[in-house]
Amino acid sequence: MQLELLSVGTELLLGEILDTNAAYLAEKLSELGINVYHKTTVGDNAERLAAALRISLARADVVLATGGLGPTEDDITAAAVAQVTGADLVEDEAAADTIRSFARQRGLRQFDSLLKQARVPKGAQVVPNPVGTAPGFILASGSNTVIALPGVPAEMKAMAEQTVLPYLERLCAPDGRAIILSRVLRLGGIGESQTEAEIADLIRAQTNPTIAPLAREYEAHLRITARAPDRAAADKLIAPIEAEIRRRLGDHLYGADEETLEAVVGKMLREARLTLAAAESCTGGLIGHRLTNVPGSSDYFAGSLVTYSNEAKTALLNVPEETIRRHGAVSADTARAMAEGAREAYGSDIAVSSTGIAGPSGGTAAKPVGLVYTAIAGLGDAIAEEHRLRGNREMVKGRAAQAALYLLYRALRSRKAVGVAK
Amino acid sequence: MQLELLSVGTELLLGEILDTNAAYLAEKLSELGINVYHKTTVGDNAERLAAALRISLARADVVLATGGLGPTEDDITAAAVAQVTGADLVEDEAAADTIRSFARQRGLRQFDSLLKQARVPKGAQVVPNPVGTAPGFILASGSNTVIALPGVPAEMKAMAEQTVLPYLERLCAPDGRAIILSRVLRLGGIGESQTEAEIADLIRAQTNPTIAPLAREYEAHLRITARAPDRAAADKLIAPIEAEIRRRLGDHLYGADEETLEAVVGKMLREARLTLAAAESCTGGLIGHRLTNVPGSSDYFAGSLVTYSNEAKTALLNVPEETIRRHGAVSADTARAMAEGAREAYGSDIAVSSTGIAGPSGGTAAKPVGLVYTAIAGLGDAIAEEHRLRGNREMVKGRAAQAALYLLYRALRSRKAVGVAK
Repeated sequence: MQLELLSVGTELLLGEILDTNAAYLAEKLSELGINVYHKTTVGDNAERLAAALRISLARADVVLATGGLGPTEDDITAAAVAQVTGADLVEDEAAADTIRSFARQRGLRQFDSLLKQARVPKGAQVVPNPVGTAPGFILASGSNTVIALPGVPAEMKAMAEQTVLPYLERLCAPDGRAIILSRVLRLGGIGESQTEAEIADLIRAQTNPTIAPLAREYEAHLRITARAPDRAAADKLIAPIEAEIRRRLGDHLYGADEETLEAVVGKMLREARLTLAAAESCTGGLIGHRLTNVPGSSDYFAGSLVTYSNEAKTALLNVPEETIRRHGAVSADTARAMAEGAREAYGSDIAVSSTGIAGPSGGTAAKPVGLVYTAIAGLGDAIAEEHRLRGNREMVKGRAAQAALYLLYRALRSRKAVGVAK
Repeated sequence: MQLELLSVGTELLLGEILDTNAAYLAEKLSELGINVYHKTTVGDNAERLAAALRISLARADVVLATGGLGPTEDDITAAAVAQVTGADLVEDEAAADTIRSFARQRGLRQFDSLLKQARVPKGAQVVPNPVGTAPGFILASGSNTVIALPGVPAEMKAMAEQTVLPYLERLCAPDGRAIILSRVLRLGGIGESQTEAEIADLIRAQTNPTIAPLAREYEAHLRITARAPDRAAADKLIAPIEAEIRRRLGDHLYGADEETLEAVVGKMLREARLTLAAAESCTGGLIGHRLTNVPGSSDYFAGSLVTYSNEAKTALLNVPEETIRRHGAVSADTARAMAEGAREAYGSDIAVSSTGIAGPSGGTAAKPVGLVYTAIAGLGDAIAEEHRLRGNREMVKGRAAQAALYLLYRALRSRKAVGVAK
């Protein structure tokens, strides 16, 4: 099966936003073993969109379009698909009802433009949008299929995961053809190039499964991809390679597939029946934000005290003035005192902290931008770590939060290993 | 003049990397006033690349390809261009010399594969590569021009800036050329469809400048784009349209171009010499994270108290147990008490808070997932707002943080309007 991606939006042609949708879909489709040979971007222009659709439909079995499904006059994807496939646009009742109840909830009087979104090509299967008002659709047309999803990344992703990817998986593998199975190993405390160096021989020697190092925002991943008749056979191909990688890089492997670092840490806390608090300076709340992205985190996460000023560190976290005066607000001692103070303030079993210089200003020769300390209290003696992080302000914040969570992960893991009681 | 972008590389189709080259070129070309109506991505496959080139050449005056000019067997762009235009591949002496001297410098013995890069279509103008070994080329073919650049972003950019963009500038505007200037207006508290409804007549009536509503993650933007001989003339075209939009939507316009909501709020706080604290429940630290993404925010932002449990709300924010028992942790009263508590705890002038149900669990019929209260204390009486937000956990968190910052923005703005003293 061949599939083409069609990204619709003038803002993509003006270079105002990166086409992250296409990259996301391409990766997911490659995991399903679906070949993507072309990706086309066109602006919000009816004629050019229709022409691009015709070209794609002549080459591929399935065309997956993103963008142009919104409520405005610029949103022309549904009309273009209808035109090219010869279908009429009709209002889908369920989609219209969803929009009406949304408008009622918001007290909107005028929502004709929203209702436009419920108009889909006749005969299309509507793809529900769990996080917005614009539905998508799947339309069979002759031997082709056209799939349209909105361009807002969160909506597109939710709809792809819930409806479109499972649909494509069924469509492309009705019987005994090879499936592609990927296993992603997630690493902490090691970069992509170091990861690759440790297993260069494995990467070179392997053809099935293949091994690909992937650089993610604040961590490295390894993707092992096997092609086999079925899932069990693919698992069998992956298992020995994964075991060898674990043997070499095990210390850095914290999770697999969709398990984020915050989810893994949350699971460990839940199993150990430990509660957690945080004290944040340079991360500004990002550690708390990441921890609370995990559903159910209120079971073990008490909260985070963001103390940006020295006064707040002293008043709310009980960091001794003396410690700040002697070692500075950005120091291992202050980080430890912050963690201990958060543990005290929230009455939690353990606490994690970070303090550092996110930049662009505030750095000195002795304490440059990117210098960050993370600490843990409540699992034996409080421990602190020093990091020298690269990047702009947001990157230093992101890497500091990652470092704090990875320290927490290791502390919880070694606690388990040596059997420290709660 | 019409130009198409052609990105060559299987890794782009696998979603392993984002196509930042195309976004960079699109932006630069738009600044030159060159229309880009299509952008196509193909893999490292000779047949499909040649076919895509033919389609692009039939539609556009100029095709600008990136990628596939390296030394490996996968690098097939020069050969495909030669094939489609009927030119032979010949070795360019200057380019070959550059590669030989590079190889000598590095002590490379075998560099036949590098020398392959010096082979360009006969008659092409070579584009020197100041930061790598792969040269690019510009080939006139009939009424068309094909430009090829390597895919490594740093090389592509250096070559585009040094040779290709100046070349295109001369090509498309031998005299009196036009520039394109965009102005982005940023809105809060109003969706994309409502925004468009308010100015639908303007959007329809305008051709220069054009007006386009854009849906961003948690807010709507309006982009006004003018084409004019120079910047001053473009500004003059934009000004009356911007004034009319401000007249109709002014209440919702909080900033322009690159000004984020947190940066605008920060600027208002700095000018008013007011300090800010936050109290967060469902946002988990995201309000603090966004406020501290602004460089220099430590001047006015004291910190945020993330209180996930009722106990922490009472112990650290002094929210009366009675308030939580009577109205619930998710209520206007608790939100107000949280804001007052944060103001007290940090000794700040004002404080903003949010409490709500981010889901997926924890909702009831009376208090469903997405119900969020935001509040402000310290500018007259504490005020609270109720929101019913859609989306998954991360979206509810994101929208709640946006709502809190927007409430803060309005409170600061009306304070200014009525002249409330600090």
